[in-house]
Amino acid sequence: MSGPVVVEVTRGPLVESRHEGIAAVVRPDGTVVGAWGDIDRPVLPRSANKPIQAMALVESGAVERFGLGNEHISLACASHYGEKRHVETVRAWLAKVGLSEDDLECGAHPPRLQASLEELLRAGATPTAACNNCSGKHSGFLTTAVQYGEPTKGYIKYDHPVQRRLREVMSDLSGVDADGFAYGTDGCGIPTLATPLKVLARAMASMAEPSRLSNKHAEAATRIRAAMNAEPYMMAGTGAFGSRINAALPGVAQVKGGAEGVFCAMLPTLGVGIALKIWDGAARAAEVAMATLLAHLGVLPAELRDEILHPPVRNVVGLLVGEMHHAKSWLG
Amino acid sequence: MSGPVVVEVTRGPLVESRHEGIAAVVRPDGTVVGAWGDIDRPVLPRSANKPIQAMALVESGAVERFGLGNEHISLACASHYGEKRHVETVRAWLAKVGLSEDDLECGAHPPRLQASLEELLRAGATPTAACNNCSGKHSGFLTTAVQYGEPTKGYIKYDHPVQRRLREVMSDLSGVDADGFAYGTDGCGIPTLATPLKVLARAMASMAEPSRLSNKHAEAATRIRAAMNAEPYMMAGTGAFGSRINAALPGVAQVKGGAEGVFCAMLPTLGVGIALKIWDGAARAAEVAMATLLAHLGVLPAELRDEILHPPVRNVVGLLVGEMHHAKSWLG
Repeated sequence: MSGPVVVEVTRGPLVESRHEGIAAVVRPDGTVVGAWGDIDRPVLPRSANKPIQAMALVESGAVERFGLGNEHISLACASHYGEKRHVETVRAWLAKVGLSEDDLECGAHPPRLQASLEELLRAGATPTAACNNCSGKHSGFLTTAVQYGEPTKGYIKYDHPVQRRLREVMSDLSGVDADGFAYGTDGCGIPTLATPLKVLARAMASMAEPSRLSNKHAEAATRIRAAMNAEPYMMAGTGAFGSRINAALPGVAQVKGGAEGVFCAMLPTLGVGIALKIWDGAARAAEVAMATLLAHLGVLPAELRDEILHPPVRNVVGLLVGEMHHAKSWLG
Repeated sequence: MSGPVVVEVTRGPLVESRHEGIAAVVRPDGTVVGAWGDIDRPVLPRSANKPIQAMALVESGAVERFGLGNEHISLACASHYGEKRHVETVRAWLAKVGLSEDDLECGAHPPRLQASLEELLRAGATPTAACNNCSGKHSGFLTTAVQYGEPTKGYIKYDHPVQRRLREVMSDLSGVDADGFAYGTDGCGIPTLATPLKVLARAMASMAEPSRLSNKHAEAATRIRAAMNAEPYMMAGTGAFGSRINAALPGVAQVKGGAEGVFCAMLPTLGVGIALKIWDGAARAAEVAMATLLAHLGVLPAELRDEILHPPVRNVVGLLVGEMHHAKSWLG
């Protein structure tokens, strides 16, 4: 076992703050290629496993039936910023399946992008459930319920068929029975399953290199990865770390972060999956840690290296006052 | 040396995230009463030492000359939420000394309170420097420059007399020459001095129990503590942890947090000062750690115990999904 993931935040000559975490790089058969910290520890993947959760949507046949495209599949995998195109695409999608945002059970929160929030408030409007960063995933859940003729109400509950299907997919991809996992309630109301980090990384590896899976799973995984690269803006939004990586690395990397410092990646050309968790839950550190691992594995493009490996810390007037980077104790 | 400060964040049956830090409880003579983690480590106090920085304002005589009250002294110590009363009081204060918010060098950022931001945007206005959480402190800086007939421009620079006075006060309160401290640039543009945690706690202790100080310092410290308790809303804003503590404990505790997980307290009835730093910079953990130390020292009022020692974690629709609390490994 190697030492933990460490990300530092400097200000002037000082390391002002410091983040620690765990990371695993795993092959589809469960072989651990890289491990930093205790990767057997269970973590709550939160939104980082949305690409896995989108499998049930693609496998249901609803994509063809309702004429859904890459933008919808990418939204099903997304934690979006609530920008106009995200919100309008969600609304149009729900109309396609005969529903509306009143059917979403994720709750409403303001758009994550400050500019979109400002636009909404200046127009005198109020945030709705379509603005929720998870509204695309929930539209996917509702779509599968419609497709299978199940009740749409209560689709966020642990025992609803929608959630049962997510556990089946997770079990198939990870090789571990997900019905045995403890769980908490996610920000958007669905169960989030306590998954050992290396098991989560293995599931990501199976998405990345699905030749061991059934044809149905393999085709869905390939379709989802393609959509994440084809519509990276739908995955998050303007300037977002995940959107930038997915745009820059078509066919090479598909990444997705989650709340509380979780980040996952599928690397099909290397045939591995990555999962990492920053213990304190900081997104800023999870992004630097993911960038560091992508660089370590040789897939981070040169044009992104500087700003993503060493993102600047600026003060209110925009002055450069520090930076973030991985610690020398972790990956040198 | 005891083990470090540890704060946990649960979700369902799991500890989802975990924060570590250091804390010191010190007397005015430098005696260490409590230590958790390496309290000799330098930290950047950020806004947590605003009460110390307000000393120069009160000692200058400008409070009497310009008819300033508790609300202004509290604002000088504040990281405020940019609510209407904060912003209007700052503007009126600057007018009293013949200046305007154009003289503030802290930069503009949106009000921290979502409701105030929404109100501003719905009115079609744009955030200005008076909305900056540090605008009260900067108004204090400008006021001292006016009082002493110094140039107001450049008052945020390390060598400006305004900043030199802050270092003199810090040296007198802590017993350590602050001119020797390394420094970074704070969010609002002023130098923030790399201060060993126990030295910061000692400076807070000197504010709390100032009998060892000169009369001038002692009177100013007493005046500042009284203002923090008398105008707790000005210290932060609606619902803020710091405002609630300062409102609930007149004469007993005056607390102030800073960016990147720093929190300080003056406890005059116990004659001690507290300083703590959460390594990852999380404000949520710094607040729970401060509440835990106040309870440990027997000064946390019963009516605040539950929600401040164990603040709930709620999801988007308001469901209780977890809580925060100190770990059993720290203070049992």
